[in-house]
Amino acid sequence: MKSYQSLKEQFEMLYHMKHADAILSWDEAVMMPNGGANARQHALSSLRGLSHEKMCSPLMRDTLKSAKEEGLSSAWDIANLRLMEKQYLHATCLPNKLVKALSHATLEAEHKWRTYRAENNWQAFQPYLEKVIGLVKEKAIRLSDTFSLSPYDALLDEFSPGLNTRVLSPLFDTLKEALPTLVEQVLNKQKPLLPFNPPFAIEKQAALGQELMGLIGFDFSRGRLDVSHHPFCGGVSEDVRITTRYDEKEFMTSLMGVCHETGHAMYEFGLPADYLSQPVGQAPCMSIHESQSLLVEMGLCRSNAFIKLLLPKLVKTFGAQPTFSLENLRDHYLNVSPGLIRVDADELTYPLHIILRYELEKRLIEDDLNVDALPALWDEGMKKYFNLSTATDNKNGVMQDVHWPSGAFGYFPAYTIGALMAAQLYEAMEGELGSINQLIDEQRFDVIMAWLRKNIHGYGARYTFDELMRKATGKPLDTHAFLNHVKKRYL
Amino acid sequence: MKSYQSLKEQFEMLYHMKHADAILSWDEAVMMPNGGANARQHALSSLRGLSHEKMCSPLMRDTLKSAKEEGLSSAWDIANLRLMEKQYLHATCLPNKLVKALSHATLEAEHKWRTYRAENNWQAFQPYLEKVIGLVKEKAIRLSDTFSLSPYDALLDEFSPGLNTRVLSPLFDTLKEALPTLVEQVLNKQKPLLPFNPPFAIEKQAALGQELMGLIGFDFSRGRLDVSHHPFCGGVSEDVRITTRYDEKEFMTSLMGVCHETGHAMYEFGLPADYLSQPVGQAPCMSIHESQSLLVEMGLCRSNAFIKLLLPKLVKTFGAQPTFSLENLRDHYLNVSPGLIRVDADELTYPLHIILRYELEKRLIEDDLNVDALPALWDEGMKKYFNLSTATDNKNGVMQDVHWPSGAFGYFPAYTIGALMAAQLYEAMEGELGSINQLIDEQRFDVIMAWLRKNIHGYGARYTFDELMRKATGKPLDTHAFLNHVKKRYL
Repeated sequence: MKSYQSLKEQFEMLYHMKHADAILSWDEAVMMPNGGANARQHALSSLRGLSHEKMCSPLMRDTLKSAKEEGLSSAWDIANLRLMEKQYLHATCLPNKLVKALSHATLEAEHKWRTYRAENNWQAFQPYLEKVIGLVKEKAIRLSDTFSLSPYDALLDEFSPGLNTRVLSPLFDTLKEALPTLVEQVLNKQKPLLPFNPPFAIEKQAALGQELMGLIGFDFSRGRLDVSHHPFCGGVSEDVRITTRYDEKEFMTSLMGVCHETGHAMYEFGLPADYLSQPVGQAPCMSIHESQSLLVEMGLCRSNAFIKLLLPKLVKTFGAQPTFSLENLRDHYLNVSPGLIRVDADELTYPLHIILRYELEKRLIEDDLNVDALPALWDEGMKKYFNLSTATDNKNGVMQDVHWPSGAFGYFPAYTIGALMAAQLYEAMEGELGSINQLIDEQRFDVIMAWLRKNIHGYGARYTFDELMRKATGKPLDTHAFLNHVKKRYL
Repeated sequence: MKSYQSLKEQFEMLYHMKHADAILSWDEAVMMPNGGANARQHALSSLRGLSHEKMCSPLMRDTLKSAKEEGLSSAWDIANLRLMEKQYLHATCLPNKLVKALSHATLEAEHKWRTYRAENNWQAFQPYLEKVIGLVKEKAIRLSDTFSLSPYDALLDEFSPGLNTRVLSPLFDTLKEALPTLVEQVLNKQKPLLPFNPPFAIEKQAALGQELMGLIGFDFSRGRLDVSHHPFCGGVSEDVRITTRYDEKEFMTSLMGVCHETGHAMYEFGLPADYLSQPVGQAPCMSIHESQSLLVEMGLCRSNAFIKLLLPKLVKTFGAQPTFSLENLRDHYLNVSPGLIRVDADELTYPLHIILRYELEKRLIEDDLNVDALPALWDEGMKKYFNLSTATDNKNGVMQDVHWPSGAFGYFPAYTIGALMAAQLYEAMEGELGSINQLIDEQRFDVIMAWLRKNIHGYGARYTFDELMRKATGKPLDTHAFLNHVKKRYL
């Protein structure tokens, strides 16, 4: 156990570096004045370089080798050692030159993306994206060799260990078959929305957001709510920093955004305390993370029971309004509206945005799809899934997301896998606990969170998402629960 | 130059680690929820351990050695290399065991100090302080051997390079001779203060504080003002974070605190941009730092001209009050009031608090003064300098400051050396620029700051405080300017 102990210490140190990185990154998004950006970039890059150096050190290599010969008995330790080795292989299989080139190319492409997206200038942007994709393919091939996965599966595995196209494609095929019809049915029966009366003061939105966080179980002695341009859940499990953004003209986005990020936060709070500093104690998988935020946002906080809780709070916070009614509030929060922009999409059309990206990025990585074909293929996909066209509106088409220029290929599917997991977990939870709507009615979020902690949060990275789903729900991930849920909710 | 280039890169990386440390420490004091404390301590301690490891590495040793043989030509580079070597020697001359023991003992003593100070329990606190002092003496002897300084001078040199008892003692002797009589004279002529009418809303104090910062020249694109329990100037030169604290019952502390910290911030902003990541580009000396905050606070912001600027702003912010008059405001801001507590002391009595501490800590380090003699000696000193007694009130006597339990011996003199420097720099600046009061009248803080940048800030750590004073004022540091200033202001 001596080598394994030494490994644990080395990984604990890496965890402390991640702590620094997470808080500095939060500060950058939430607190930092603009003039500090350059110095912060350099500081973060040194910190990451140092972590990488420690991870790739001969000490790490040698202790890993001898720890594997020691023979561990605890299942936690065995899983931990397996994850340590995976992280080591991941860090060492990519040549430094490639890592640097990728880091440089993505920084440049993100920067150009900001300019050229605003100008709707695909021509100028394309070579930067091409460069990123070229390097991502090189990386995918290295990972593919190391982990014996196909190149695109190797990228998927980075964000969601165990996820692959063999699992994904049939799930997505079912969804893309079912959803367009469903959306049409919903649009045919959907009533027009009655508008609310702005303004909704920001301080009041913030206070109400914090009240909802407290209701769900957010521990304010271990976290904060702040404001950033793009909402996120950051910080560390011991000190979770979630953010939202406010608009005086409407309260819906900030409140539901807070509920979503609180779902991420509850997962972080619930990770196994004894292993937090170890790979096995940390959140392993973007899909599971997203399942937790969506379960809270979509499953719990857009439910009838929650809207019933919310209504009197809205009246107390903003004063009564003629259109503050259960029915109208529900209509607003469950409005289905196909549109060009993924981040504005509703629960029902969101997966179609993801499927479009999945199909294209898979071909980019594995089939040598030419980057210059993207705008036309995007338009084609939008027509097929949404009856909408982006034509030459690339700003709101292929150029809308920062993910690709920033090199994140294999990430998008996590959003929809998370949605499927959330629905399937909700169903299993209801099977054990009885009506979730009733628990929300009684404000027993503690009971719901205890179930999630026991079945998901508390396992950390011990299982892949597939093993976790089988343990928690008795079956592998499929689309039934999600499709049942949306049919029940929207039809 | 190859080795020197490599050294510069190594020190740049250490600077990035300091960046991370500074922002994490700021966050800890300003943003962090209580529950995050333990994880943060561990993260900071790993970060510092890693920096120490890099500083003490064979690579550092070897490149230092070969860089010294390369022969540098630029004065900046020569100064930089000298400082690099000093930092290396400082880090390597202390055995790891001692560093760890000191870190452990000071953490423990600070922790006990919080409890036992509140309980006025000297008996229980004494052994923890003794342990710290024992280890500080060990450290002082090591530093003394390495840098050929007496043990206490070696500690002084850590905070204010070049400061020593040969310089300090005569300056302090003059002050302790002159100040008690001066204080008595002021007390005899001082009028009673007319109270202001609270409350003074915190948001309004904060807005006015930011207005004053802007007036002095604080660059909000490179810094922030926030709230913390103890006001400080933190962050990094590219992103300076100052803090203050508010009390609705009075506005004077927060406003003057903001001016003080803005003085520190202006120094950080003015450091030489080309060398920021190198030892020679960073603020080298607590005494110089304190001179800049005191020059702004005491020299500029408690002046008649500034109070004339402030008055209409106060009226605009809080509404008119019968006692908002130039004379009464001035009386408040220049009130002399001998008391037990250093941090509450005015400009005139503050040095006496420092001298008492200096005399005691010097004996603790160099003369084997017994720790159990401190309460009686403290009481004796208070009687001698202030006509006040602490008797058994150790909470407001020897136990009032956290500096000693936290191991900071040799730090206190910086406060008073800073005050002497501030007065002497003010005098020299007035000799060159003409009436400073008139510049303040005309709101030409840019002219004042340009002089400070040229004569102090822009030199970074290139000179010791003594060299800097000779360059900026034409003579070594003495007490004349300070005593002239306080006589003119208070008599």
